[in-house]
Amino acid sequence: MTLSLRDLAQDVLKGNRRSVARLMTAIENEDPESRAAISQLYPHTGNAYIVGVTGPPGSGKSTLIGQLAKQYRKLRKNVGIIAVDPSSPFTGGALLGDRIRMQELSADEGVFVRSMATRGSLGGLARSTVDLVNVLDAFGCDIIFVETVGAGQSEVDVIKLADVVMLVMVPGLGDDIQAIKAGIMEIGDIIAVNKADRENAERTVLEIREAIELDTEQKEWIPPIVKTIATSNEGVEELVKKLEEHRVFHMKAGSARTRIKGEIQLLEALKARLSETVMVGLKGDRDYEIMIEKIASRQLNPYEAAATLVDKIVRRNQD
Amino acid sequence: MTLSLRDLAQDVLKGNRRSVARLMTAIENEDPESRAAISQLYPHTGNAYIVGVTGPPGSGKSTLIGQLAKQYRKLRKNVGIIAVDPSSPFTGGALLGDRIRMQELSADEGVFVRSMATRGSLGGLARSTVDLVNVLDAFGCDIIFVETVGAGQSEVDVIKLADVVMLVMVPGLGDDIQAIKAGIMEIGDIIAVNKADRENAERTVLEIREAIELDTEQKEWIPPIVKTIATSNEGVEELVKKLEEHRVFHMKAGSARTRIKGEIQLLEALKARLSETVMVGLKGDRDYEIMIEKIASRQLNPYEAAATLVDKIVRRNQD
Repeated sequence: MTLSLRDLAQDVLKGNRRSVARLMTAIENEDPESRAAISQLYPHTGNAYIVGVTGPPGSGKSTLIGQLAKQYRKLRKNVGIIAVDPSSPFTGGALLGDRIRMQELSADEGVFVRSMATRGSLGGLARSTVDLVNVLDAFGCDIIFVETVGAGQSEVDVIKLADVVMLVMVPGLGDDIQAIKAGIMEIGDIIAVNKADRENAERTVLEIREAIELDTEQKEWIPPIVKTIATSNEGVEELVKKLEEHRVFHMKAGSARTRIKGEIQLLEALKARLSETVMVGLKGDRDYEIMIEKIASRQLNPYEAAATLVDKIVRRNQD
Repeated sequence: MTLSLRDLAQDVLKGNRRSVARLMTAIENEDPESRAAISQLYPHTGNAYIVGVTGPPGSGKSTLIGQLAKQYRKLRKNVGIIAVDPSSPFTGGALLGDRIRMQELSADEGVFVRSMATRGSLGGLARSTVDLVNVLDAFGCDIIFVETVGAGQSEVDVIKLADVVMLVMVPGLGDDIQAIKAGIMEIGDIIAVNKADRENAERTVLEIREAIELDTEQKEWIPPIVKTIATSNEGVEELVKKLEEHRVFHMKAGSARTRIKGEIQLLEALKARLSETVMVGLKGDRDYEIMIEKIASRQLNPYEAAATLVDKIVRRNQD
């Protein structure tokens, strides 16, 4: 309890699991000191392969990640799992049986499972996730799965930080497949069609292949489609193979993506810092309170108010 | 084509539908001039009843909103519909049949349907939605439905701007109901259990009621649960009744929520303005580019870089 967060960072580097958990809690609580710890860990990051996993609720993402984790453990890799999806069994949002299976997984010393319990108010989700990934990376995880439901803006931001995005689909999504074709599909590097023993699995694969072919004429990496049945571990080895193929591809093509990831990390940190700095100044400020009252009563419009505030806050070039 | 966006605002106030559509496009494209138009419209807002509609994909949110819209038309109310959910039929993400039914709806002069086609990069989703709502409010809509899938942070922000939140559930969600109980449930003011002719409907109602009772001991408004079958219009009248009851409740309890909504609008506008102002200064800036390179190569950590940048950007008290 008397350990500072900086010491915590040292303990994370030494491989202390409890320190990892405590630092993560500090990050989730948006404890400002957690930033110093992250800063200390940052030079030790960049080694993990970060796999974003997304797809509709009920597609079996968590079970599939669980099986992938076991497979990677057989290859003697250390595995990290971060669940951002509020309906994930990892976040306690599922049936007891699922949760017990997940607990089994996290009893393995080579696996670290963490769910995002909270949702920050100022875009905190994406930022916290970046930090959690960095902690697991510095801790020594070789591969980190980040599970998101993939529907919101924040989740899309999270996905941008992944080295590879695995999209988990399921036969018989009906209407929803159209939407996914149009939207989320374009971010999938590897497509798993899970629950492939269901009827219409073949048709789903064909539909996805068509959508991919329409979309990827100039792409260097054509997203492979792998049929899986997570509950019986079918197709999981194949999925690992594809993930590893993509890792090789990614390393060759890497520098552009590394730069983008650098910029995203900077922008996230910048937005957080700006919001905090500005909010600290505003909270309790009499003018700010009056502005809110006026906006609520429609006497002032929010854009005008924001412009006034920004003029007060931001240093101009002539300064 | 030669009309400025300011003139567009005037035309919106006169009730011109095409102007509404054009202004909305400008908002979605984050055209900076759209802000002037919104500012002009803002004093004319605050009259519409804003209904946030959320729930898992496939729960029939869109069909239900369609039926509610028809019901409100019978009461001679003008109806606005904004779909933020990417898998919504309103956004073109569904089967042709659904889309045709939606088009029928939007052929009615008293209904305005709009879907969010784009996702802004800097939290633009929530802000754009606020603006679209304001446009429809100023245009004269009496009731505005905002449909979201409710899974991401941005969607949660959107929901905060609603006067009432209708949660659409469906029997047989299995695991997912647990998650919804834990998370999304707490924001639902009215719960519709749609597709109530499915088996297990009664059990779903009971489970939801239990969850509500656990959660609402001190609440003044106990969320009612309404069984609906949207496709055959069953339960829709009852739902309208509950919405109107909530509107009365809301008007009594209103001022606190109005203030919160004012603050959210200001914060959204402030974040947007700050990001823009800062980004304009950073893009192409040599120091910024060097920082990104250093972050990508792990020589510099993002928080340190952000702190340096914020110090350069934000005016301190001593200025």
